[in-house]
Amino acid sequence: MNKTIPTITTGALPASQKIYVHGQTHDLRVPLREISVTGEAPLRVYDSSGPYTDPAAHIEISEGLPDVRGGWLQGRGDVEQYAGRVVTDADNGFATGARLTPVFPQHRDPLRAVGTRAVTQLAYAKAGVITPEMEFVAIRENEGRMEAYTRDGDPMGAELPDLVTAEFVRQEIAEGRAIIPANINHRELEPMIIGRNFKVKINANIGNSAVTSSMEKEVEKMVWAIRWGADTVMDLSTGRNIHNIRDWIIRNAPVPIGTVPLYQALEKVDGIAEDLTWEVFRDTLIEQAEQGVDYFTIHAGVRLHMIPMTAKRVTGIVSRGGSIMAKWCLHHHRESFLYEHFEEICDICRRYDVSFSLGDGLRPGSIADANDEAQFAELRTLGELTKIAWAKDCQVMIEGPGHVPMHKIKANMDEQLKHCHEAPFYTLGPLTTDIAPGYDHITSAIGAAMIGWFGTAMLCYVTPKEHLGLPDRDDVKTGVITYKLAAHAADLAKGHPGAQLRDDALSRARFEFRWEDQFNLGLDPDTAREMHDETMPKEAHKVA
Amino acid sequence: MNKTIPTITTGALPASQKIYVHGQTHDLRVPLREISVTGEAPLRVYDSSGPYTDPAAHIEISEGLPDVRGGWLQGRGDVEQYAGRVVTDADNGFATGARLTPVFPQHRDPLRAVGTRAVTQLAYAKAGVITPEMEFVAIRENEGRMEAYTRDGDPMGAELPDLVTAEFVRQEIAEGRAIIPANINHRELEPMIIGRNFKVKINANIGNSAVTSSMEKEVEKMVWAIRWGADTVMDLSTGRNIHNIRDWIIRNAPVPIGTVPLYQALEKVDGIAEDLTWEVFRDTLIEQAEQGVDYFTIHAGVRLHMIPMTAKRVTGIVSRGGSIMAKWCLHHHRESFLYEHFEEICDICRRYDVSFSLGDGLRPGSIADANDEAQFAELRTLGELTKIAWAKDCQVMIEGPGHVPMHKIKANMDEQLKHCHEAPFYTLGPLTTDIAPGYDHITSAIGAAMIGWFGTAMLCYVTPKEHLGLPDRDDVKTGVITYKLAAHAADLAKGHPGAQLRDDALSRARFEFRWEDQFNLGLDPDTAREMHDETMPKEAHKVA
Repeated sequence: MNKTIPTITTGALPASQKIYVHGQTHDLRVPLREISVTGEAPLRVYDSSGPYTDPAAHIEISEGLPDVRGGWLQGRGDVEQYAGRVVTDADNGFATGARLTPVFPQHRDPLRAVGTRAVTQLAYAKAGVITPEMEFVAIRENEGRMEAYTRDGDPMGAELPDLVTAEFVRQEIAEGRAIIPANINHRELEPMIIGRNFKVKINANIGNSAVTSSMEKEVEKMVWAIRWGADTVMDLSTGRNIHNIRDWIIRNAPVPIGTVPLYQALEKVDGIAEDLTWEVFRDTLIEQAEQGVDYFTIHAGVRLHMIPMTAKRVTGIVSRGGSIMAKWCLHHHRESFLYEHFEEICDICRRYDVSFSLGDGLRPGSIADANDEAQFAELRTLGELTKIAWAKDCQVMIEGPGHVPMHKIKANMDEQLKHCHEAPFYTLGPLTTDIAPGYDHITSAIGAAMIGWFGTAMLCYVTPKEHLGLPDRDDVKTGVITYKLAAHAADLAKGHPGAQLRDDALSRARFEFRWEDQFNLGLDPDTAREMHDETMPKEAHKVA
Repeated sequence: MNKTIPTITTGALPASQKIYVHGQTHDLRVPLREISVTGEAPLRVYDSSGPYTDPAAHIEISEGLPDVRGGWLQGRGDVEQYAGRVVTDADNGFATGARLTPVFPQHRDPLRAVGTRAVTQLAYAKAGVITPEMEFVAIRENEGRMEAYTRDGDPMGAELPDLVTAEFVRQEIAEGRAIIPANINHRELEPMIIGRNFKVKINANIGNSAVTSSMEKEVEKMVWAIRWGADTVMDLSTGRNIHNIRDWIIRNAPVPIGTVPLYQALEKVDGIAEDLTWEVFRDTLIEQAEQGVDYFTIHAGVRLHMIPMTAKRVTGIVSRGGSIMAKWCLHHHRESFLYEHFEEICDICRRYDVSFSLGDGLRPGSIADANDEAQFAELRTLGELTKIAWAKDCQVMIEGPGHVPMHKIKANMDEQLKHCHEAPFYTLGPLTTDIAPGYDHITSAIGAAMIGWFGTAMLCYVTPKEHLGLPDRDDVKTGVITYKLAAHAADLAKGHPGAQLRDDALSRARFEFRWEDQFNLGLDPDTAREMHDETMPKEAHKVA
């Protein structure tokens, strides 16, 4: 085992301090970041970075983050602690001895719903209950603003309130227009909301592979991604130690963690798609739900009869989950077990409040395949599944493409709204051209900003290494910053109240040559400062 | 003087060869790049890189590029060679001795129109003449295609022909909807066209400053920018040696060179805006026209009565030309001499066929100032000036902003089309948020792709160093590639015939794991290959 312990990045961002706003109804404190500005009031901004940027916090990854939600969960009186499923060697890809990532040292038995109750935010919202999670995200969305600001934007059908109230949050969740991914076994979570009438969010992907894996490295990847603004993190690990590493990640994650359970299920059957069974998959769902995964990508929309629709495509099926399921369906010539067992999947998810991210297994992998029959057939199925999940009180978002030229982006949003009943849309890019490998964070940021404006609630980042290799630390940061600016451009265009405050503060600093303020108010103060100093290094130039 | 001679970058791009298509009517050969693809016909793409990527070309910057247009100009019989203006010490910022950049060694007396004739492409187009320049760009726009391809796009009012003919080019120029910037003293030029019904083009800025200057460095910057796809280059030099360096650039430039003559005029009055006079400016126009500058940015739209409109802005006047003229107008409390002498400026431009790029001196410098009264008042004035220039048979394009949130971009295009009578639009970005210094190539690529789709004919690049410092070689490349992908995304969305051929070829390569083809078909093969090799270095992985 590698004994060198990588550093977990901690410390405040430049000129920034962590502040906490307390709840009015519930016992909670919402983190915000306050940026100092010369001669002006400090600017409060949304802060997804967790305790890592709070100098007062004690960070020790073997202890995990503090329990934020335990009291809230107890207060609801509808969960029970139980022994939980026994971890098997298969869960860690049969890694043993020195090759086995150590078990996370602090064991805690999992929680589940009492009996057949739904312990989801959707169930509470429908019942008229405002949970602490709802109050938390309401305060968070306002970024500390107590008043409305001038609105300027075209919301494209979104209905953005001047100030977000906890009751507004409850209504949006009850209507299925927003979700708070918050597994009851992820007590370390600082809740956040994903919905068209809230700030546009971004997701960053991490994951070990068969080649490289250490729990410290994976925790640091997550910490690094949220430091720069990732709102959720998907752990797309494959290979060995997948169970234990996931424990380390979740215990140290203040943001929702998403996974694709199919990837681990496939590891359990030695990578042979045809050998997948409902039983193996079901067991994996429970395994991950007990660990605290907040949302599952489930490719239940890939149905047998749709697969021939991809035959004439330039790039066939490019989604990993989609191609695994297509292979299974064709081999057995049977309907997908994910589709057939979807209600049972819901029964598991409602017990832990794992949200659905209904996967787009037939998303286009090229400009040529955008908006085709296969893609939209699957989308309509995802709409059907949404209704089933809602009937089970499960929270749902819908995944979207992919590769789409600009003139076909709006149709993606329109079709999604129409067929998926306004469940939040969560898109990868889309990439607006295929001809720039090495720059796909940019080809996709164009599409992401546009579809975010049109109503997509969360944007899955793309790094410069997309299609080429595994992103390193710099690539992750570049991807996150690129998507933060795209999401913010969308917020500005939608006319989110207060969104322009940061642009204005930075522009004033720029006009007055307050260089330090200009750096500090930007998304990446370090890079801006370095670039400036390369050609104008003198301190004098920064205050001129 | 620095005696180390920087290398001028030459040689073909990977897997590429230069081919030439000959004219049917005129004696001309149009360069294209042919990319080899495994198992497929080679792909022909537009090539702005000039002889530098032709291994058969002899490159010696002290000799300049071959004379492409001399025969064409002679053939028209409407120009005369004359001694030209005497170069003064002031033209080079009074640099002397070892600090003086050497005069370009090959002297050639300039050409001008005989008498008061207009020797512009617009004059010929109106007269029904198809010039060699027009035939050249027609062949170039088709990229070697001889047949129409399936169309898929939303042209947003543009009227794109299946195949571009020389007659179509003539009509578009005659109507003022397109320009071929082609000073009769720039004989080395490979003509290109800027217009809404042609491929979207990009411009890269270069320029020495008071601090650094060497002719080889500036020539190399230009060569480097066009290697990666810049269609025109603006030389924004200030400081010493400005005249001599410009000669070196133009004599070695296969692309149109644009300038802001006001910058040099200001140098001639020691940087004191108030001391500018029409006479100094007029003399500078003739100086640069004789050298072969293809288009002039002229900030004649900044009028005295508009300046108070900027008082309440967050970022006032951010255009350098705009602020110079505003200072002059306020000091003298007089109408701008550029506005008052605009007809005389036209008389100079028509004599050499220098195109106008009517500058947006009041462009917004922040999201807060987008689409305001000052900006649109100036735009309407640019529309008036367009009519005056056209009456003088001068070619015109219109510069646009700047910083604009997504929901206000379309209005910029609509207003420009309405008030500027469909003269080509040439925009900087626009940047869609102000909060990402260090990433403004991306904040602006979002706006650039969108406005390109809506009808902007040329996009002025923005590098990562925007607002922070002077771009280096890597920044220039990043800026050019970013804008090439934005322009291409716009072409795809407009449905340019043939635009998708490259995306499709690359996507097929990607789907079949033909790594080398995937790299070679991309905009930046070197970076894609490097990124791939970082994590998957084995040759075997490239053919798997």
